[in-house]
Amino acid sequence: MTQDNGSSPHRVVIVGGGFAGLYCAKNLGGDGAIDVTLVDRRNFHLFQPLLYQVATGALSPGEIAQPLRGILRREPNVTVLLGQAVGIDPAGREVLMSDGGPIGYDSLVVATGSRHAYFGHNEWAPNAPGLKTIEDAIEIRRRILIAFEAAEREADPERRREWMTFVVVGGGPTGVELAGALGEIANDTLRNDFRAIHAPDARIILVEALDRVLPTYPENLSRSAVRQLQQLGASVRTGTRVTGVEEDGVLVDTSTGGKRIPTRTVLWAAGVQASSFGRAVATALELQTDRAGRIEVGPDLTVPGHPEIFVVGDLAIAKQPNGKPVPGVAPAAIQEGSYVARTIRRRVHGERPKQFRYRDKGDLATIGRLSGVADIRWLGPFGQFSGFLAWLMWLGIHIFYLIGFANRIIVTVRWGWSFLTKGRSTRLITEGELLPPIRTPEPPA
Amino acid sequence: MTQDNGSSPHRVVIVGGGFAGLYCAKNLGGDGAIDVTLVDRRNFHLFQPLLYQVATGALSPGEIAQPLRGILRREPNVTVLLGQAVGIDPAGREVLMSDGGPIGYDSLVVATGSRHAYFGHNEWAPNAPGLKTIEDAIEIRRRILIAFEAAEREADPERRREWMTFVVVGGGPTGVELAGALGEIANDTLRNDFRAIHAPDARIILVEALDRVLPTYPENLSRSAVRQLQQLGASVRTGTRVTGVEEDGVLVDTSTGGKRIPTRTVLWAAGVQASSFGRAVATALELQTDRAGRIEVGPDLTVPGHPEIFVVGDLAIAKQPNGKPVPGVAPAAIQEGSYVARTIRRRVHGERPKQFRYRDKGDLATIGRLSGVADIRWLGPFGQFSGFLAWLMWLGIHIFYLIGFANRIIVTVRWGWSFLTKGRSTRLITEGELLPPIRTPEPPA
Repeated sequence: MTQDNGSSPHRVVIVGGGFAGLYCAKNLGGDGAIDVTLVDRRNFHLFQPLLYQVATGALSPGEIAQPLRGILRREPNVTVLLGQAVGIDPAGREVLMSDGGPIGYDSLVVATGSRHAYFGHNEWAPNAPGLKTIEDAIEIRRRILIAFEAAEREADPERRREWMTFVVVGGGPTGVELAGALGEIANDTLRNDFRAIHAPDARIILVEALDRVLPTYPENLSRSAVRQLQQLGASVRTGTRVTGVEEDGVLVDTSTGGKRIPTRTVLWAAGVQASSFGRAVATALELQTDRAGRIEVGPDLTVPGHPEIFVVGDLAIAKQPNGKPVPGVAPAAIQEGSYVARTIRRRVHGERPKQFRYRDKGDLATIGRLSGVADIRWLGPFGQFSGFLAWLMWLGIHIFYLIGFANRIIVTVRWGWSFLTKGRSTRLITEGELLPPIRTPEPPA
Repeated sequence: MTQDNGSSPHRVVIVGGGFAGLYCAKNLGGDGAIDVTLVDRRNFHLFQPLLYQVATGALSPGEIAQPLRGILRREPNVTVLLGQAVGIDPAGREVLMSDGGPIGYDSLVVATGSRHAYFGHNEWAPNAPGLKTIEDAIEIRRRILIAFEAAEREADPERRREWMTFVVVGGGPTGVELAGALGEIANDTLRNDFRAIHAPDARIILVEALDRVLPTYPENLSRSAVRQLQQLGASVRTGTRVTGVEEDGVLVDTSTGGKRIPTRTVLWAAGVQASSFGRAVATALELQTDRAGRIEVGPDLTVPGHPEIFVVGDLAIAKQPNGKPVPGVAPAAIQEGSYVARTIRRRVHGERPKQFRYRDKGDLATIGRLSGVADIRWLGPFGQFSGFLAWLMWLGIHIFYLIGFANRIIVTVRWGWSFLTKGRSTRLITEGELLPPIRTPEPPA
C-alpha cells in the first residue's frame, strides 16, 4: 500500500503459475520499482484448456506446456522459485514454504487454482481419475488405450463389453470435450486398428446430475451439444447422479431409481475444490469461502481486511456488478491476473486503482473433430453458433492464446494433420501398467 | 520351411516392434500366404536415435514414437498383440507369454533388442539412469532440470558445484550426443533463466574407458568430436574407467590412480545387455552368446539348428563377409528386418533365399546444436565431415526416417525453431520428484 522510494522495491509474491499468476507476473515485468517472485510447484505453465487433448492422444504434453523460466526470462525484475507454498503469516507478511525459509511480501497474489473433488468420496479416486495435471492426462490416456487393448484380448463378451464402455462423469465443458474426443477415438482414430473388436462398437456415456449439459451456456446450445455428441456415438444421461464408483461399474441414481453401468473406465470431470494453499490462506485469514473452499473477494480482488492480499483465478469468487460470479475459465483468470498487476503498479506509483470489470467474451467448446458450440456474448443472439463454425473459432482462439511460438505451429500441424487423417498420433501407453490386464483363455490362432 | 498351401497361411511371429521387428512386419504386409503377429510390450514404435533429444528437452515423447497399430493398420495380414513374451517352446514351435496362452509359429523373428547394463553393478542404477525407454528419457530430463533448480536454491558453494556438475559415462554416440546436448543446455538454453547461478558455469564431463570417444569412427573424427565437445564447455576424459557411482559422486580409475568426481547427476551411456526374452531364447536353444547375451547368427540371420528362428537387430551378432560384426545401429536393424521378411517370403513361395549382406552407409552423430561428425562410407576418405555439414546431413536423414508424416513436420519445426532461438521448449519436470531437494538456509530477499 505504501509507495516505496527508489531504493527498496515493492515486493510482490505470486503463488501459482497458471493463467492468473503468469499474466500477473508478465504485466509486472519491466517495472523497476517492483520486485516479483513467482512461486510454483511445477517448472512450467500448463495450457489447461487443451489438457483433454493430451488425455485423448491428440497432443503431447510438451506441446501445451512451456517452462516458466523461459516465458519470464526477459523480465529481470521477476524471479521464478520452484517450491511449494504451504501457508502465510499475514502479520509478518511472509509466505511459508514446505522447504526453505519464508518469503516476505508487500503484496501477495494467491493464484493456486483448484483440484478436482469427489463430493467427499475420495475412495472413488483410484477408479475415476480426474483431469488437472499433465500426469492426470497421461493416466487417462493410458486407461483409454489399455481398455481397447484389453477388449481386443478378451474372449468373454460380457467382460469385453465392460472394457468397451466409457463413462464420463460431469457435463461441463471438460466432460463434453472428453466424451466428444472419446467418440472420435472409437469411430475414427481406432476404427481399423483392431482385429478382434470393432472400435466403433464402444459405448460412451456422459453422466450429468443437472438437467442439461453445459449449464453455463444458453439452452439451445446445450441441446445442440447433446445432438453432436450423439452423432459421435456418445449418449448423454442428464438428471443422473453418481452414487458409487467401483472397479467394474458406476452406480447412478435417476428419477426412476438406482442403476449400475458396467464399465472399466470412468473419467471424472465433476466437482472442484480449492488448492491446499488456498485453503491454508482462507484459514489463516478466517475468510469466507464456499463449500469448495473458494475465497470471496471484493471488487478489487482483495480479501476483506487485507488490501495487500489478492486472490485470482479459479480460487476466487469474484462478483460481477450484476451479482453473477465471474466464471472459472481461462479468459477470466487472464483478466484477473492482468488487473491485479495494473492495480499494484498504480498503487506503487501513487495512482488511484480501478475496480475489476470482467469482460465476458463468451464460451466455446469443441465436440469431436469438426463440431462444437460457441456463445459469443457481444454478438448477442447472433453469437450463438454450433457445428463446424464453432469448431473453427475454437481452433483459432486456442492457437492464438497458446504460449510459445513453436507450440502454436506444432499444434496447428497436429490439428491440421489429424483433421485430414482422423489420426491421433500421440496415443502412447507410458508410465504405470503398460499391458492390458486381461488373460486370453485361448491363444490367437 | 515347408511351403504352405493356400488354405493355411504360414504363421510368422515377430517379437519386438523396434526397427528390426517393425521393418520385418511391414515387408511381410500384403502377402496373403503369410499371417503375421507382431508382439510387443509397448503399443508404440520408438525412434530410438532421437531419444536423447527427449532426455534433453528438445523433443516431446509423442514426437518420436508412433503407435504400432497405426503404422500397420493397412496390412490386414498383420496382427499387433500387446503382451510380454517370456520364452519359447522350440519343439512345439510356440512363443510363451506372461499373460495369455502361447502363440504358435512357423517362422519366429526375435527382435527384442538390448537394455543398458552396469557391468554387474546394478547397485549403480538408481544414481546413474540409462537411456533406452521413453520413461528413461523423462527421468533423465527431470534429473538435469532439477539439478539446475537445486543449484539455484543452494547457498553452499561446494554443494552448488556438485549440482552444477554432470557426468556422462560412455563415449559412444549416445554419450557424445548427451554430453553435447548438456553443453548446449548450459550455454544457450538456460543461459538467462536463473538469477542466483550462471548456467554456463556447469561442468560437463564425459568419461570413457577406452582411449578415444566414438571408437567405431575414424580416429580423426574422434578427435574432432572432442574438440567440438570442448567448444560446448564439456570436457572429455578417455582411458578413465568408472569404479563406483554414489549419490554425490563418481569414482574413477585412471592411469594415474583413482579419483572422485563430486556430482549429483550421472547419466549412463555405457554397456548393454540382451533383453530378457533374448536370453530366454538363447537358454532354450543352448545358443552361443557373447558376454552381453547377444546371440550369434548365421549368414541368413537364423540360429544354428533352427532355420525357422531368426534373430535380428541389437540382439544379434551377425558377421559381415570381412569378419567384422554388423554394428548395433538403426540402419543395420532396418536392413536385417527387411532381409528376414524377404527370406520368409522367398521360402514360402518356393524361391531360393539369399544371404544377408550389410550395406554400411556410414555413421553420423550430432554434437550440440550446429555441429557433428559424419563418416559416409561410400564416399571413402571424402565422406568424413565434421561440424555444420555433418549436422545438416544428420538432420535430413533423421527427419527422412522418422515414422509418421506429422512427426516429420513437427520435428522439423522444433529443430528449426530451436536453431533460431537456442530454445528447448519441452524441458518439463514431470513424474517423480518435482521439486529440487535442497533447502535454502536463507529466504530469498
